[in-house]
Amino acid sequence: MAEDAVGLGAVTVLGVLEQAYFSLQVIYARRKYSVSPPNTSGPPEFERIFRAQANCSEYFPIFIIVLWTSGVFFSQGLSSICGLLYLYGRLRYFWGYAACAHGRLAPLYFSAQFLWVLIGFSSVGILLTFCRVYLSVDLLEELGSALGLV
Amino acid sequence: MAEDAVGLGAVTVLGVLEQAYFSLQVIYARRKYSVSPPNTSGPPEFERIFRAQANCSEYFPIFIIVLWTSGVFFSQGLSSICGLLYLYGRLRYFWGYAACAHGRLAPLYFSAQFLWVLIGFSSVGILLTFCRVYLSVDLLEELGSALGLV
Amino acid sequence: MAEDAVGLGAVTVLGVLEQAYFSLQVIYARRKYSVSPPNTSGPPEFERIFRAQANCSEYFPIFIIVLWTSGVFFSQGLSSICGLLYLYGRLRYFWGYAACAHGRLAPLYFSAQFLWVLIGFSSVGILLTFCRVYLSVDLLEELGSALGLV
Repeated sequence: MAEDAVGLGAVTVLGVLEQAYFSLQVIYARRKYSVSPPNTSGPPEFERIFRAQANCSEYFPIFIIVLWTSGVFFSQGLSSICGLLYLYGRLRYFWGYAACAHGRLAPLYFSAQFLWVLIGFSSVGILLTFCRVYLSVDLLEELGSALGLV
Repeated sequence: MAEDAVGLGAVTVLGVLEQAYFSLQVIYARRKYSVSPPNTSGPPEFERIFRAQANCSEYFPIFIIVLWTSGVFFSQGLSSICGLLYLYGRLRYFWGYAACAHGRLAPLYFSAQFLWVLIGFSSVGILLTFCRVYLSVDLLEELGSALGLV
Repeated sequence: MAEDAVGLGAVTVLGVLEQAYFSLQVIYARRKYSVSPPNTSGPPEFERIFRAQANCSEYFPIFIIVLWTSGVFFSQGLSSICGLLYLYGRLRYFWGYAACAHGRLAPLYFSAQFLWVLIGFSSVGILLTFCRVYLSVDLLEELGSALGLV
């Protein structure tokens, strides 16, 4: 299995390191603005960094789940590329939100878009696999020959 | 691997779509009751929808983890059915909680029950696999012949 | 696949049971200190138990992700042992935090350390697999012969 999934594994570990980086930024912001746990309210500069990390954490399990379903059932290469773009969007989201509240929007939409692409890939991949395994129908082949006849 | 897990993959993607639906409902409720982020308090109608989504999100990674351990180590078919029933329970929980605080209880117990069934399946499946791989003992066969002797 | 990952599966199910135990402790503490949901503030004894559970939940998906990447790409045995030590650290963290705020620190550092070890194992394992699959280079062998020549 390891051989077939090394791209997904690499994106996964990169994602974990990105989450670790966000968590460290919150720890530094807590020190800088003197907000000790379990408090989560403080100056707006602190709250923006805190919210940015919380939002990225909330979506991280969903991201990893669709990265792998898309990679296993559709295409490892395309899924890994979408995964890298998602992580890049999240990094820009974090920096943008830390700078000002408005700065979070453009990269948020950018990364959300790749999450939807991964969900789309997963759905298509699972549908194709389902038809092949349980109905013995190769939808791609059927589609190809149908288009060839037209 | 894709062929052996298409049922689990389908339930997983359905679950992700359900989570996306819950998140969209929170966005609509934010607009309807004019509660802009990062605020999370507002009229009780808003807070119930917000809490329902938060509770479903909190349990989602645990659900996906036990769905797959149960499916890989015990039975893909039974696990997929339990997974579908869990997701159905969560949908009724979300709608029930959105209507009134009391409406969340019955579907919450319903879905919790299937989470425990998946944990039970996982434990049994891992115990059987462990005995087979490391102790070269097939517990099911041993049990069968023991019962046959009685 | 089940045969190759039974150790990882066992640690995963143990981790899920530990999370269930933490959640039950919060429910008992809610009853004991009369803090009904969705309230999360109350006497310090309650808040410490609540925070301990929340912190363990927050890290649980990350833990499961690196446990499996480390187990699949590096070594199942070493990863399972690190996973058990992480879960043991989390149990001591929960009990320590429930007793007093200071009691959480030593076991928190203990468990964080094993999380970093699992991230390190995953990174090394993925790098080695990547070089073997895409560059047809066996880094361990290269390293061995380089050291042999020196």
